[in-house]
Amino acid sequence: MSDPFFHPVSGFDLPRFAGVPTFMRLPHVPPDHPRFAEVEVGLIGLPWDGGTTNRPGPRHGPRQLRDASTMIRAANGVSWVRPFEAMACADLGDVGPNPADLMDSMDRVTRFYQAVVAAGIVPLTAGGDHLCSLPILRAVAASGPVGMVHFDSHTDLFDTYFGGTRFTHGTPFRRAVEEGLLDPTRVVQIGIRGSAYDTEDRDFARSVGIRIIPMEEVWARGIPDVMAEARAIAGSGPTYLSYDIDFVDPAFAPGTGTPEIGGPNSWQALEVVRELAGLNIVGADLVEVSPPFDNTGGTAYLGASIMFEILCAMAQGRNG
Amino acid sequence: MSDPFFHPVSGFDLPRFAGVPTFMRLPHVPPDHPRFAEVEVGLIGLPWDGGTTNRPGPRHGPRQLRDASTMIRAANGVSWVRPFEAMACADLGDVGPNPADLMDSMDRVTRFYQAVVAAGIVPLTAGGDHLCSLPILRAVAASGPVGMVHFDSHTDLFDTYFGGTRFTHGTPFRRAVEEGLLDPTRVVQIGIRGSAYDTEDRDFARSVGIRIIPMEEVWARGIPDVMAEARAIAGSGPTYLSYDIDFVDPAFAPGTGTPEIGGPNSWQALEVVRELAGLNIVGADLVEVSPPFDNTGGTAYLGASIMFEILCAMAQGRNG
Amino acid sequence: MSDPFFHPVSGFDLPRFAGVPTFMRLPHVPPDHPRFAEVEVGLIGLPWDGGTTNRPGPRHGPRQLRDASTMIRAANGVSWVRPFEAMACADLGDVGPNPADLMDSMDRVTRFYQAVVAAGIVPLTAGGDHLCSLPILRAVAASGPVGMVHFDSHTDLFDTYFGGTRFTHGTPFRRAVEEGLLDPTRVVQIGIRGSAYDTEDRDFARSVGIRIIPMEEVWARGIPDVMAEARAIAGSGPTYLSYDIDFVDPAFAPGTGTPEIGGPNSWQALEVVRELAGLNIVGADLVEVSPPFDNTGGTAYLGASIMFEILCAMAQGRNG
Amino acid sequence: MSDPFFHPVSGFDLPRFAGVPTFMRLPHVPPDHPRFAEVEVGLIGLPWDGGTTNRPGPRHGPRQLRDASTMIRAANGVSWVRPFEAMACADLGDVGPNPADLMDSMDRVTRFYQAVVAAGIVPLTAGGDHLCSLPILRAVAASGPVGMVHFDSHTDLFDTYFGGTRFTHGTPFRRAVEEGLLDPTRVVQIGIRGSAYDTEDRDFARSVGIRIIPMEEVWARGIPDVMAEARAIAGSGPTYLSYDIDFVDPAFAPGTGTPEIGGPNSWQALEVVRELAGLNIVGADLVEVSPPFDNTGGTAYLGASIMFEILCAMAQGRNG
Amino acid sequence: MSDPFFHPVSGFDLPRFAGVPTFMRLPHVPPDHPRFAEVEVGLIGLPWDGGTTNRPGPRHGPRQLRDASTMIRAANGVSWVRPFEAMACADLGDVGPNPADLMDSMDRVTRFYQAVVAAGIVPLTAGGDHLCSLPILRAVAASGPVGMVHFDSHTDLFDTYFGGTRFTHGTPFRRAVEEGLLDPTRVVQIGIRGSAYDTEDRDFARSVGIRIIPMEEVWARGIPDVMAEARAIAGSGPTYLSYDIDFVDPAFAPGTGTPEIGGPNSWQALEVVRELAGLNIVGADLVEVSPPFDNTGGTAYLGASIMFEILCAMAQGRNG
Amino acid sequence: MSDPFFHPVSGFDLPRFAGVPTFMRLPHVPPDHPRFAEVEVGLIGLPWDGGTTNRPGPRHGPRQLRDASTMIRAANGVSWVRPFEAMACADLGDVGPNPADLMDSMDRVTRFYQAVVAAGIVPLTAGGDHLCSLPILRAVAASGPVGMVHFDSHTDLFDTYFGGTRFTHGTPFRRAVEEGLLDPTRVVQIGIRGSAYDTEDRDFARSVGIRIIPMEEVWARGIPDVMAEARAIAGSGPTYLSYDIDFVDPAFAPGTGTPEIGGPNSWQALEVVRELAGLNIVGADLVEVSPPFDNTGGTAYLGASIMFEILCAMAQGRNG
Repeated sequence: MSDPFFHPVSGFDLPRFAGVPTFMRLPHVPPDHPRFAEVEVGLIGLPWDGGTTNRPGPRHGPRQLRDASTMIRAANGVSWVRPFEAMACADLGDVGPNPADLMDSMDRVTRFYQAVVAAGIVPLTAGGDHLCSLPILRAVAASGPVGMVHFDSHTDLFDTYFGGTRFTHGTPFRRAVEEGLLDPTRVVQIGIRGSAYDTEDRDFARSVGIRIIPMEEVWARGIPDVMAEARAIAGSGPTYLSYDIDFVDPAFAPGTGTPEIGGPNSWQALEVVRELAGLNIVGADLVEVSPPFDNTGGTAYLGASIMFEILCAMAQGRNG
Repeated sequence: MSDPFFHPVSGFDLPRFAGVPTFMRLPHVPPDHPRFAEVEVGLIGLPWDGGTTNRPGPRHGPRQLRDASTMIRAANGVSWVRPFEAMACADLGDVGPNPADLMDSMDRVTRFYQAVVAAGIVPLTAGGDHLCSLPILRAVAASGPVGMVHFDSHTDLFDTYFGGTRFTHGTPFRRAVEEGLLDPTRVVQIGIRGSAYDTEDRDFARSVGIRIIPMEEVWARGIPDVMAEARAIAGSGPTYLSYDIDFVDPAFAPGTGTPEIGGPNSWQALEVVRELAGLNIVGADLVEVSPPFDNTGGTAYLGASIMFEILCAMAQGRNG
Repeated sequence: MSDPFFHPVSGFDLPRFAGVPTFMRLPHVPPDHPRFAEVEVGLIGLPWDGGTTNRPGPRHGPRQLRDASTMIRAANGVSWVRPFEAMACADLGDVGPNPADLMDSMDRVTRFYQAVVAAGIVPLTAGGDHLCSLPILRAVAASGPVGMVHFDSHTDLFDTYFGGTRFTHGTPFRRAVEEGLLDPTRVVQIGIRGSAYDTEDRDFARSVGIRIIPMEEVWARGIPDVMAEARAIAGSGPTYLSYDIDFVDPAFAPGTGTPEIGGPNSWQALEVVRELAGLNIVGADLVEVSPPFDNTGGTAYLGASIMFEILCAMAQGRNG
Repeated sequence: MSDPFFHPVSGFDLPRFAGVPTFMRLPHVPPDHPRFAEVEVGLIGLPWDGGTTNRPGPRHGPRQLRDASTMIRAANGVSWVRPFEAMACADLGDVGPNPADLMDSMDRVTRFYQAVVAAGIVPLTAGGDHLCSLPILRAVAASGPVGMVHFDSHTDLFDTYFGGTRFTHGTPFRRAVEEGLLDPTRVVQIGIRGSAYDTEDRDFARSVGIRIIPMEEVWARGIPDVMAEARAIAGSGPTYLSYDIDFVDPAFAPGTGTPEIGGPNSWQALEVVRELAGLNIVGADLVEVSPPFDNTGGTAYLGASIMFEILCAMAQGRNG
Repeated sequence: MSDPFFHPVSGFDLPRFAGVPTFMRLPHVPPDHPRFAEVEVGLIGLPWDGGTTNRPGPRHGPRQLRDASTMIRAANGVSWVRPFEAMACADLGDVGPNPADLMDSMDRVTRFYQAVVAAGIVPLTAGGDHLCSLPILRAVAASGPVGMVHFDSHTDLFDTYFGGTRFTHGTPFRRAVEEGLLDPTRVVQIGIRGSAYDTEDRDFARSVGIRIIPMEEVWARGIPDVMAEARAIAGSGPTYLSYDIDFVDPAFAPGTGTPEIGGPNSWQALEVVRELAGLNIVGADLVEVSPPFDNTGGTAYLGASIMFEILCAMAQGRNG
Repeated sequence: MSDPFFHPVSGFDLPRFAGVPTFMRLPHVPPDHPRFAEVEVGLIGLPWDGGTTNRPGPRHGPRQLRDASTMIRAANGVSWVRPFEAMACADLGDVGPNPADLMDSMDRVTRFYQAVVAAGIVPLTAGGDHLCSLPILRAVAASGPVGMVHFDSHTDLFDTYFGGTRFTHGTPFRRAVEEGLLDPTRVVQIGIRGSAYDTEDRDFARSVGIRIIPMEEVWARGIPDVMAEARAIAGSGPTYLSYDIDFVDPAFAPGTGTPEIGGPNSWQALEVVRELAGLNIVGADLVEVSPPFDNTGGTAYLGASIMFEILCAMAQGRNG
């Protein structure tokens, strides 16, 4: 489709620093907008970090990601995919969270995404911390468990924190498996590294069939080989893509709350997404961008570039 | 007037960090919007610093000012004026400049403001450097010279720079006087200070009747006395208000390109505007906020607060 | 008392940048330490910002305040009080919060302070956001309502946020009055300013007898006069002192989540505390220092200096 | 040649932070200096960013590059070339631009370089934005078109911006080809990447015979292979070297206005220059270093190191 | 005198960001320069912080002060003194210290200043930490003790640190009195404040007749009254002026190693110097500017402005 | 051994930002602590940068490293070594230096380490600049020369600076060889790069048998091969491990005084240490972390991670 309404404003026409910033300079089409039903892929801000156990800040992520995303242009310079011509994309605005009530916030998020899914819109979310993925999955996987390709330096498969707390940014996928939102045999986690509390998360993964590819294996095998395995695990079924910016090395992405050294560089950060072309992506998120720690703004630009690469993968899956 | 359409989103409903940022969380009503004609005061971004002779950056001002202005609430805590209930305010968006062509940019600016003025909208501009005031005045003062209250540490009355260059952020008001846009006998400049090239600007001011109140005089007489004189100079005729953020001491407003020490503090920065209640303000600007040098974001918040105080003064002038 | 165990390490002996940092280089005496019972004033870190509605960060406050407080020396340069000789002071360590569970965190805080109060120790807390004051007051005012001198740019007397949420950093003192922890007729709030949502908080204050001294009144009357009134309101009964760093102008204290321009400078920030000498202070806190926004570290040093000035006021009250 | 006058001050004699900073601590030999005629390679500051379409700042580049270059020592640690013994190098000072007049600035630049070229001095320029290369080439290629090795993430081959503007930092080499300053068949552009407006620039390149080596090809083939091709393209004729710092990944070079992720690391940033030894380099520039965005100063040091590596390549070309 | 050679480059001719930076854009006239003997006031960089007991950094002061001083213009905007027309001023370059040998550095400094004094040049030094003043005074006061006006938050009159160390930035004036370089009855210290180790320094001051005016006294009496006393103390004899940037409040001057809250603002920072017009100033320094902690560059600009104000006071003393 | 006293506090129990920070949240066991004799590996802070010839700051390293090390967990995610279960580790506190007296500081350091070595504790030091290694080696190698694996971008083998100064951070290993503390035939230096003063250091290395592996050789051969050679050189004898953070590329470790581009990434930074498992490590240091230049805190976290990796290597050597 190619309705000009859904095309971004070009930097040849309006300088990148000008204009009210929306994601990738797309039209702002909140749920009450008359053209909401036409949207095929909805970019959504989820400014919520209620599950953060260490350094907060991702609540400020969507605003900074919108700002940085004004640098994104029309075509992918490697694959030459033009996502905004292939799919009607729009900025659906932000979900309003309740910063002082975790359970209330999760409910608000799920309700918003239920409306998005009901409209047939594929959501691409800018978080927020990683707990965001859980209430999103409750909407996206309402009709049955989905597979997941998950880039991260942590498994986020822990059971509880601080003596029994079940909902933090370290537990979303443990809950998602328990709630039947994820098909663990179609889940792969890539890039896990850093010092470990214990092996409880990995024992759980093994027990339910989640495949963990630690970072040393990525370095040893190379990205094409690892991603071929990831595609095979996800298969052709509906698949969620969850990208924690701390997957990337903190030299390239310092603006995050729980950085872990030893990750991929920024070229590899995009390459892994490019390798997902053809998957049946039913939703995606880019989480844990934390502006208070992003002193050059580079993390936000990297995040926006990853979001663009995800759009290109979605466009290719749609065409495939 | 009190149409809820023109009311800002409250921080009790949506957290301040959420949502696509517009000035003070007002509705985004660009010239092609169906309700444009209803707007009474239009907040406009002018992201242009083509006249900057030293450190550039104000082109990034409008975006940061929108972000910071999400902290502004409904009522003035001193005067208890509620500007958004008193006047239909909206964010008219940005004027798109041409960063590589100074004269083209000035034309674009003037054309935009001509449309605003034609619609009967009073413009409140977020710059941009101080050269912005000139193409705005060409529209605002199209039907005759206006008075001006000007807060700054520099007179911006120089003739030329670099061997004959007539348009820089140090010359707008020299040009405005020459072009008959300002009535110099109704112009007052407050806060001038710092080391000086020479006295050429002050000689010009004296020759045409502009009143300069240097900073040492402000310190000596106090703000109420100085502002009483300023009100008397501006009188009851149409008056433009131009506020260069470098009027304020750089400890309070570091984010600017030509800071000058020895200025007022942030309380005084608002107090001088509060003293303008009752004037017939036909346009206003807040210029020279430069985000690359605003490392805490405090300058932008101060700038947004000054813009709010200007709105309150406008509302009082309207009521008066 | 003057047991050397309770004396800080001097910068003449160990450079300020050396050593494991405790508050003011005092001994670290957690509740299980053999000398806990000897402590008279306990400095406590409360790294919790679960009630923050806008920019988070105060959870990192205690660590940065400990670091900055290594600059504090033995004697007050104005009053020449030597608090560490007058009272047995110690760093009691941090209360461990639950960052993902607000109600659990409040319980943990109250339990910790009950033990402190039971040991006869006067607590001086380094927050944390302003919701911290509520669970502390539940311990400190367990035997009856206390008076309060409160420095802030906000009243923190709101009822609810986000559609019914009763516990945020904007509501602690509304709850404290409702719970009978504060005697509103002995409460004074100083420095209130900035734009306002509405007058609901002030209406409540008036209805229960809380005295609000807005910032414009502070500027007009001067600090000695205002503080004389404050002392009269608090009287001779047990009084809590709550100091939100955003009372101070953000040029002097940028490191906070909800800064408000127009506040006092750093000399005045200490002067207001010095004026409290003689009060019967049964507990105190310094809250809302947010290191992610404190880019020079100056806010932390100011905060540590305020804590020292509070210690001096306590010592004088004790002697009085 | 080895006249001590042209040797840098050693860090063994004067600490690196001491002294008025010149490029690499070389003597300051402006055009009116008695020894100007003896200079063989002139390091020139071109503090001008008039062609910048997005984030300005490179006007501050020369000063920061001089400061950072005080860290450079006498010998190349890989090739052991000693450029300051091989060639009489000096800091020729800055070209004074006109920040408010683009065309005037271009004239000033060309005139300065005409004098440099007339004196037989090979210019090594520290920019400034990439439009700087055009007025330099007008002097350097006055007697006939030159070849060019160009490191960048963008082609800078666009035709116009903002509705017809022909001179921006995105157009210099389009103009240079049109003006006959470059022999397009001897031009190679290396490292191009990022999202694209369209293919207009690449279509132009193809039509005139410019070879573009996109970043994915660099990653696939490796630097030695790519640079062998680059040397073959440039051949033995007079060749200009233009190095945009945004060729390098922004983790290594954040201080630039239009960063693009996915670039080479800092070792590779030097390696590509080392591979140019033997070329007939008639001029070179290092552009787009933007101090306002270089928060660690690391971009400037990388830029200074690239300039040193260029000097070494020049020295080897001279010897070869 | 008014030889154009000794006039600064104007910002109307060369933009402020262009050119190799010297102090105030004056000519660089090191001791071996042919016109050295004509200099009347020499601006000298002393990049040495060997006496720093806490946070180092002032060794980087001179370079940043030169950079910031390019903003200084020709005339004082309050007194309208034109120092560069009144006196032949030049940048004499930096004294090369030995960062790893304190005693060797002090010798190098004294030797440099002996040559300056021998040439009849009045030195205005940009430090460096406060220990710099001691080796300077050894040259300046070689022929007899001088008076001193000293702005600071610390007395720098301590005897020893760390078990007997006699030379630190906390001891220079104790040593200077002991060595007969200062006439203590003609010494006044203004702005002293902050928490204190003990009263040993003040006891010493009292015993030798040094007058300390603590900050609370400055606030109470006002600057004109305090400075009248200071002028009376210094009298008409040869007087040294020593200005520690931490005299100023850290909101205005964060870039220093031992900041102390509660100081004067930036207007007052200049006002105190203006009040010294007429004294017989035989040397002056501005010390403790520490760029690593000066994140906006504002401290350096304040420092450069103080240096300019000192030049104006010198020019008035000379005329008087 | 596995006494819980020597186990770090878990982030599952106490959030990472809470608590008085010690190295890796280990118990604080200074020499006068009753359990000092039980410690097997002592983590020591050495906050001293007296030998720094350029940008100071490492004196602040230990405090920031303690803070960052609270992120370290119990097990190595690659080797699954659990050092805190394998060895009794503790934070021994800081050595108190004399910032204004280099020779006195060296004496203090050596005396502290003599006590540590006498207690049979293996020291792991957090510096401080690289001169720290010399006084440590005087204690560690008191009974005979040791081998050394040295990661750095500089050899630190120079003879003198500034006309004869023998003790700087550029000379420690020259002195250590001269004093018989190192067996040069068992010393390997890895990662050397950057521009060079001359070849005097390398000539010395060659003359005494020290093996230098420059960075280009590391890139060419790969880390496993290089480290196999390093292990062979060190052999089975007592070996010191010295790790200068500037070994790592400044994109990953900007917080250091003499950065050198072209170094390894953060994965490789740990990999080289992992390859040392099995060596007989009798002491180790991590030096030159300089917080004033570490604007994201990432250098400190990398440094803490290297210290953890060193502990793991020690644990494996002990088991081997």
